[in-house]
Amino acid sequence: MSATSSVTATPGHAFASVFGRVAPHMAQLDVFLRGQLEAFEPEIRAMADYCIDTSGKRIRPALVFFSGWRGPAAIAPDLVRIAAVVELVHLATLVHDDIMDGAEVRRSRRTAAREYGSTAAVLLGDALFAHALNLATQFPTTEVCSAVSESTRRVCAGEIVQTLRRGSTNVTRADYQRVIDLKTAELFRVSCHLGARYGGFAPAFVEAAGRFGRHLGIAYQIYDDLADFFGEEKRIGKTLGTDLASGKLTLPLLVLMERLPAADRAELTAEILGERPSQLALHLRQMDELDVFGAVAAAVQAEIAAAQAALAPHASEPPAPLLLGLCDVLQAQVTALRA
Amino acid sequence: MSATSSVTATPGHAFASVFGRVAPHMAQLDVFLRGQLEAFEPEIRAMADYCIDTSGKRIRPALVFFSGWRGPAAIAPDLVRIAAVVELVHLATLVHDDIMDGAEVRRSRRTAAREYGSTAAVLLGDALFAHALNLATQFPTTEVCSAVSESTRRVCAGEIVQTLRRGSTNVTRADYQRVIDLKTAELFRVSCHLGARYGGFAPAFVEAAGRFGRHLGIAYQIYDDLADFFGEEKRIGKTLGTDLASGKLTLPLLVLMERLPAADRAELTAEILGERPSQLALHLRQMDELDVFGAVAAAVQAEIAAAQAALAPHASEPPAPLLLGLCDVLQAQVTALRA
Repeated sequence: MSATSSVTATPGHAFASVFGRVAPHMAQLDVFLRGQLEAFEPEIRAMADYCIDTSGKRIRPALVFFSGWRGPAAIAPDLVRIAAVVELVHLATLVHDDIMDGAEVRRSRRTAAREYGSTAAVLLGDALFAHALNLATQFPTTEVCSAVSESTRRVCAGEIVQTLRRGSTNVTRADYQRVIDLKTAELFRVSCHLGARYGGFAPAFVEAAGRFGRHLGIAYQIYDDLADFFGEEKRIGKTLGTDLASGKLTLPLLVLMERLPAADRAELTAEILGERPSQLALHLRQMDELDVFGAVAAAVQAEIAAAQAALAPHASEPPAPLLLGLCDVLQAQVTALRA
Repeated sequence: MSATSSVTATPGHAFASVFGRVAPHMAQLDVFLRGQLEAFEPEIRAMADYCIDTSGKRIRPALVFFSGWRGPAAIAPDLVRIAAVVELVHLATLVHDDIMDGAEVRRSRRTAAREYGSTAAVLLGDALFAHALNLATQFPTTEVCSAVSESTRRVCAGEIVQTLRRGSTNVTRADYQRVIDLKTAELFRVSCHLGARYGGFAPAFVEAAGRFGRHLGIAYQIYDDLADFFGEEKRIGKTLGTDLASGKLTLPLLVLMERLPAADRAELTAEILGERPSQLALHLRQMDELDVFGAVAAAVQAEIAAAQAALAPHASEPPAPLLLGLCDVLQAQVTALRA
C-alpha cells in the first residue's frame, strides 16, 4: 500500500545510479539473507525464500551502508546484519501491503498473497517481522531491536492512518506529512541512525544521520507521490493516477484542491469520495494550469534542503558525500519528471 | 484460527479456577497493559485499547506468574512485563486469526477486523507485535526479545502449515503434533521458561519449566480439539464440529479416520476435501462407537504425564504445586467432556 513500494516493478530506480559504491556490501547482504533461511522452520523455508527476493531496490540497506561508510575496504558484519534487519522489516510490510491491495504481481513475480493465499501471506509477513526482530537481538545490547521494533510500530501506525483515511477529503497538508513521516521516513531514519551508530561515528553525527534519513524519506515519498501524476508510466513502472483512483489524497491532489475554484473542487471531492468516476485527464490538465508540479517539487526541495542542512556540520565525515549524493540524484529525478 | 483462541467466547475456561492465586498479578498486568497505550501513536491508541481487552483468558500471563512464583507477597515487575509481552504477542495473533477466519465476534465484542476493516486489522496486529517486542527490549539483555521473537516466528510457522493443510487428508499424527507444538505449545513453553528465568530460579528448573509448558500446551490444544466434538456448546462457547466443517484434520478426526472401515473412511475423506457436506451427527455416532474419545483423552493424558514428569525432580520449588495444579484442572476438564 505504501507508495514507496509501488515503483518496484521498474528495473532501474531513483537511487540505483549511486548504489554502485556499495555493490560488494549488497552482495554480502544477499549471502547473509540467504543464510537466514536456515533459521526458518523447514515447512516455511521455501516461502521465506520466495519473499527474500534479490531484485528489490534495497534502498534501506544502502542507507545503512552509506551512513556507516568508512571507506571501500571494510564491510563491517554489524552493518550487514542491520541492513538485513531493516530489509526484512520492509519485505514483511510489502507482503502485507500486497494482501491489502489485492496486488497480484510485484517485481515481475506473483506476490506471496497470490502464490500462497492471503491467509498464509498474513502469517508469512508476521514470520518475517519476527525473524527480523530476532536478528536484531544478535547484538550485545537491546539497542538495535529496540530502535527497529519502535520504528516498525510507527510504520504500521502511519499505514493504518493512511488506510482509514482513504476516500476521505478531510485531510490537511499536516495530516499528509504526518503519514509519510511515519510510513516511509521512519525506516529511512532508523536505517541511517543505526548505520552511523554501528559505523562507530560520534553521537552528534549519528543524530545528524538520523535527521538526514528522515528528511530524505519524506522527500522520497513526496517525489513518489508526484510521479503518480507526472511520471512516464514505463519508466516509473506503474499506472498513473492510482492514488486518485483509490481515493488517496497525496500532496499533488491536496495542492490541486487548494488551487481549484470552488465548483471544480466540489467535483474533485466527489471523485475522492468515490461518488463519481475519477477524471484523470482533466485533473492532469488542471494540475498543469495551476502549476501543481512546481508546488510539490518545492516541497521535495524543502525536505532535501533540510536533509542537506542536517549533514552540513559533518561534511568531512566519510559518509557525508555518499549521503548527499542521494539528495542530488533525487533532485535530478524530480526534474526528470518534467523532461 | 488457532483452536486455542476459539473457546474465548466462554466466560469461564479450563484454568480459571486456579488463577485466583495470581489475581493481584493479573490486576497489575491490566494496569501495565493500559499504561502501554501511551506508547502507541495517538492516531492508533484507541484501536490498540480496543484489542487490549481485559476479559481474555490470560493463560500465558498466568504461566509466567506461576513459573516465577516466590510466594504471594512479592509481584516482580519483570514478571509483569514478561506477562505483558507474551499476552500482546498472543493478542496480535488473535487479531490476525480473526481476519483470516472472517470472525465477526470475539469475547462478545466485534473483532478488530469487523470494527476497523481487515486492512487496518492486519496493520494493527503488526503494531501490537512490534510493540510486544519493543517491550521485550526493556530488559538489560537481549534474552527476552530473542526468546519471544523466535517463539513468535515458530507460532506463525505452525499456523502457516495448518492453513496450507486445510482441506487436505494427507495428514499424519506426527504432522498434527508438529503443528500444535509450534502454534500453541511454543508460547506456553516460552511463558514458563521466561517466568522461571526471571523468577530467579536455577537453570535446571528454568529448563524443566519450559519443558512443562510445552507439554501442557500440547495437552491443552488436544483437549481443545477434543472439545470441538465432545464439548457442550454452551459451556465451551463455540459451535461443535467447526474443525470438520473447515476441513481441519485434528486428532479426533485422525483417530476416526484410522478406525473407520475403508468405505466410511472414503466418505469422510470426501467431506474433508470439501467434495460433500460434512455429516457431523453421523461422525459423532461413529466416534462414540469407535471410542475416539478414549484415544484422544489418552493422548492428552500422555502429555500431562510428560509435563508432570518434567517437574518431578523440582517438586520442592514454589512454582511446582501451582503448575501441577494446572495439570489436574486440565485432566478434570477432559473428564467433564464426557459427563
